[in-house]
Amino acid sequence: MYDIRQWRHVFKLDPNKEISEEHLERICESGTDAVIVGGTDGVTLENVLELLARIRRFQVPCVLEISNLESVTPGFDFYFIPMVLNSRDKKWIIDLHHEAVKQFGDIINWDEIFMEGYCILHKDCKAAVLTDANTELQEDDVIAYALMAEHMYRLPIFYVEYSGSYGNPQLVQRVKQVLKQTQLFYGGGIKTEKQAAEMAQCADTIVVGNVIYEDINKALATVKAVKR
Amino acid sequence: MYDIRQWRHVFKLDPNKEISEEHLERICESGTDAVIVGGTDGVTLENVLELLARIRRFQVPCVLEISNLESVTPGFDFYFIPMVLNSRDKKWIIDLHHEAVKQFGDIINWDEIFMEGYCILHKDCKAAVLTDANTELQEDDVIAYALMAEHMYRLPIFYVEYSGSYGNPQLVQRVKQVLKQTQLFYGGGIKTEKQAAEMAQCADTIVVGNVIYEDINKALATVKAVKR
Repeated sequence: MYDIRQWRHVFKLDPNKEISEEHLERICESGTDAVIVGGTDGVTLENVLELLARIRRFQVPCVLEISNLESVTPGFDFYFIPMVLNSRDKKWIIDLHHEAVKQFGDIINWDEIFMEGYCILHKDCKAAVLTDANTELQEDDVIAYALMAEHMYRLPIFYVEYSGSYGNPQLVQRVKQVLKQTQLFYGGGIKTEKQAAEMAQCADTIVVGNVIYEDINKALATVKAVKR
Repeated sequence: MYDIRQWRHVFKLDPNKEISEEHLERICESGTDAVIVGGTDGVTLENVLELLARIRRFQVPCVLEISNLESVTPGFDFYFIPMVLNSRDKKWIIDLHHEAVKQFGDIINWDEIFMEGYCILHKDCKAAVLTDANTELQEDDVIAYALMAEHMYRLPIFYVEYSGSYGNPQLVQRVKQVLKQTQLFYGGGIKTEKQAAEMAQCADTIVVGNVIYEDINKALATVKAVKR
């Protein structure tokens, strides 16, 4: 089975956005380590299934990052489940998860499930608004969440999310220094080779999303920047 | 070091309650596997330190179950940190923990820390009131919390708490059936040998508390019931 700990670069595709066959093929064949299907709004079973079917024509590992219960479907290699550590609403920390486990507990294959401890740091992004995240955090707040992810909840992934804006590499690096077991994902605002290379030096895995829909060539260049 | 997974019976001593030297000695020398220091109200650094010093004269492993930050002190073998899974207030799920890690993150010895996923089921008990726990749970709600404790948060301990009333052994047994890694603690209302023996057949570890202060001989008899 795929070892996500080896992943250095992943693309995130939003089921609520259009992508041409040609662009999708270039993404899937880019040499990226995986494709994550996930978005904040407008994620439905229909558009998730459609994207799954299209991605499955390629070899790349394919992950569903669960945004809502309605759009969950079998067929992905892995399922990433966000736990928004800095949400003010415990719905995003424990309640939706409880509902899901209550409903699907006896059919879940836990080997396919990876919990992500999210720390959302860009206050204007859709995910921060939706989850009512407290983005006014100091470095020591973020470090504390990272330590909790690793030691208290033993989450496989800690995800520093600046969705829509490029984050602070020094902060990401400081987080990386305190994590030993938990894998550090960075996502947000990576649009250039230089940014990809810079964040890949700080985090274990970088996530490239929006630029796919803005400039496919720049998106593809981020793979080379990491894999070089 | 002590292996908590071997523990079948523990006593819980409340630092806010009086206990004579003679009774304390009988508790510590009873053959119980450990003594947990913990309570819901009136727990102060002073009464925790006093109890610690008194228990330390004996060989029994000694755990602090953290109720508030002010009363945390070095000197215990282990620290149990409750995460109240069915609290309606995320303070008891993540916020106090974040505050603690922010304050003590760089000096914590994580090998001494054990997270407890609490599920509080007796609605009138002090812990339920304090943490605003939703105790109106069906069996499948409790099972779902147990699965989350094991698979999502990988907690070492899942603690079914009926504090002050004797719980439902069938429910405890059902919970035990879904747990493979996470250790099942049961606490609440154990006052007789028979109850201790019954719950010890369902849970991995039983916690005996209040009866210590009501009838020391009955309390001591619970050890024999489990160790037999």
